[in-house]
Amino acid sequence: MAEYESALADLAAGLGVNVAPGQTVVVNAKLGQEPLARALAIACYDRGAHQVEVSYADPHLQRARLEHAPEEALGTVIPWVRQRPTQLAEMQGALIGLSGPAAPGLLDDLDPGRIGRDTVQLIEWAKVIAEKSVNWTIVPGPSKAWAELVFPQLEGEAALARLWEQITRVCRLDEPDPLSAWRQRTAELARAAQRLDAAALDGLHFTGPGTDLRIGLLAGVRWEGGTFTTSWGREHLPNVPTEEVFTSPDPERTEGTVTSTKPLLVSGRVVKGLRVRFEGGRAVAIDADEGADLLRELVAREEDGNRLGEVALVDGSGRIDELGTIFHDTLLDENAASHIALGSGFGHLAQDESVAAQINSSAVHTDFMIGGRDVKVTGTTRDGRDVPVLIDGRWQLP
Amino acid sequence: MAEYESALADLAAGLGVNVAPGQTVVVNAKLGQEPLARALAIACYDRGAHQVEVSYADPHLQRARLEHAPEEALGTVIPWVRQRPTQLAEMQGALIGLSGPAAPGLLDDLDPGRIGRDTVQLIEWAKVIAEKSVNWTIVPGPSKAWAELVFPQLEGEAALARLWEQITRVCRLDEPDPLSAWRQRTAELARAAQRLDAAALDGLHFTGPGTDLRIGLLAGVRWEGGTFTTSWGREHLPNVPTEEVFTSPDPERTEGTVTSTKPLLVSGRVVKGLRVRFEGGRAVAIDADEGADLLRELVAREEDGNRLGEVALVDGSGRIDELGTIFHDTLLDENAASHIALGSGFGHLAQDESVAAQINSSAVHTDFMIGGRDVKVTGTTRDGRDVPVLIDGRWQLP
Repeated sequence: MAEYESALADLAAGLGVNVAPGQTVVVNAKLGQEPLARALAIACYDRGAHQVEVSYADPHLQRARLEHAPEEALGTVIPWVRQRPTQLAEMQGALIGLSGPAAPGLLDDLDPGRIGRDTVQLIEWAKVIAEKSVNWTIVPGPSKAWAELVFPQLEGEAALARLWEQITRVCRLDEPDPLSAWRQRTAELARAAQRLDAAALDGLHFTGPGTDLRIGLLAGVRWEGGTFTTSWGREHLPNVPTEEVFTSPDPERTEGTVTSTKPLLVSGRVVKGLRVRFEGGRAVAIDADEGADLLRELVAREEDGNRLGEVALVDGSGRIDELGTIFHDTLLDENAASHIALGSGFGHLAQDESVAAQINSSAVHTDFMIGGRDVKVTGTTRDGRDVPVLIDGRWQLP
Repeated sequence: MAEYESALADLAAGLGVNVAPGQTVVVNAKLGQEPLARALAIACYDRGAHQVEVSYADPHLQRARLEHAPEEALGTVIPWVRQRPTQLAEMQGALIGLSGPAAPGLLDDLDPGRIGRDTVQLIEWAKVIAEKSVNWTIVPGPSKAWAELVFPQLEGEAALARLWEQITRVCRLDEPDPLSAWRQRTAELARAAQRLDAAALDGLHFTGPGTDLRIGLLAGVRWEGGTFTTSWGREHLPNVPTEEVFTSPDPERTEGTVTSTKPLLVSGRVVKGLRVRFEGGRAVAIDADEGADLLRELVAREEDGNRLGEVALVDGSGRIDELGTIFHDTLLDENAASHIALGSGFGHLAQDESVAAQINSSAVHTDFMIGGRDVKVTGTTRDGRDVPVLIDGRWQLP
């Protein structure tokens, strides 16, 4: 699988993070992703990186902590872990994250209360990303454990080979020139964002099986899709693959009910059949066929964790939905379908400080998928007209 | 092997580092040592640690760096890596290192010049250790790769089981109460250090096959063995196992020739049949059957890297030499036999600042074994008498 790994590493280093000569690159990986992490190190050094620091997270250490650490230790973070984002930003460093579940099911028998109290999403990373201080990307990091979760009928190497084949497809690594294929696709996404901005929408309306949800939009917050550019001028592609166009909605104006169209993972555990009811912008009822307690705990413990920070639209021309695979990985699954996220929003999309202050702020950010071919998205313009936005997977805006 | 791992973890957490409630513990491990690292996390949390951070070093990343990084990147260190020792000291944290070669032979075909230029031993760690700011320990970290190097006739699990059996023996984990066995042995080592101090030696003389070496000693620098105590009062055992009594010699008064009695590893490569000639305190000729170039490069690039920082005496009652195993790991092999180290010495052994200033200071510290049953150690007292010190593995001092 060395060819797959070096192809994805070249795309991640060359277009995803777009590493600059002399940079320090932090790679957040998990045990089981070693081959890709090593290929990334080579691809970054070949582009002139001075340092590539790979951290391998070990889910068994998380389990040891959740089972054995004193109660008062939960939720605490070592000071240098909290300082890392700011330090990386100050040196104009780069960040690569490898997605994919590390050890599915490993935490399933543990107390959801302790898991919730020890789940910390560093606001420092959100700040560095909002301020566009680092060039960053997240790419899939195939491992045997992940592959066996996605393809339970296959084992070990066979499952991993199948996962790589599908990731090769969705990352367009089967194109003659993957970088130029992505430049074309990200240009399309940027144009869709421009059309959404031009439509001047006051709100969106999602309707479909189990879903009748209205989301208010803020004037002065734009839509975004495709590549980002750092404050110091480095273009990068934050998600590979990316098929979404997204914005941060009005956190006070979400009303109705929504049914998740795909499972999601929260703190390593699966939440299936999620149904959420919103009133006055807040998720007031969270139910699910499996895992609702964990999501409730996570959302409740952080201020404004129950308001929306993101709404994203995904058209039908991406390659993820066509596979029909549930990847159990937000990066891939969220790019298969339109989605919303509870928790923090994206301040950089606001036209000024006063508008940015209206966007939701929280220590959590949990995406879940609400779109699909049978979910219709319409909009209401600020001058009161109803317009179709995304029907049957196709953009409807002029 | 879960029993072996939890037994060694309990010894390392309970006596080695002697973790205190509320501490942050840094564990420096390598890929392949995951089971012991996880057992250590559990043992530390059970004793009240608030954070256990395990870093897994990946030797393939080092190879990627050595092969692909730009020349000007070699020898550079990410600022936060350099800051880590001081930060850990400020929070009175703890440090556990797992010894053992990670991937024997992996760097053998690479340019020794680039390896040497990228070998950085952080002076910040040496400072923190000299100032006794953290409780720390190094314990063996068995892995399959290491086991197959030590027992080339065995494979995988069988080799690992054999290595664990021997480590269980040398770490006294086969005693009914390993902690009390080690308390007894470390008390013996402390007494040997006291006797060496009482003998008021001006120098040592090693004689044996290929060895006729005189090492001058400094008045006002004491010998040490057994447990250490941090500046804030925490007793800990820096090496498990430990069989040595050591001091920092006069860096200006080493004369003669010495032949290493065991192989050593430098930057992941084996140096065999090492022969060193000293004049006026400096190693003026370094030869070996294998690997001499690498050691020469390392010693030459740092100031005073060619002077002695340590001389250590090991009696015959330890359990390592009796096995006849060459572990290819300094922690274990150095405790099989008397040894010396080129490079940095131990400032904390000096009675005052002016004496400490005479001890060798360098960014490197490379141990090599020079003792054994057929190497005799005698001493000359400061009042001119010749006295036997260690003959046939037995202490001769009153």
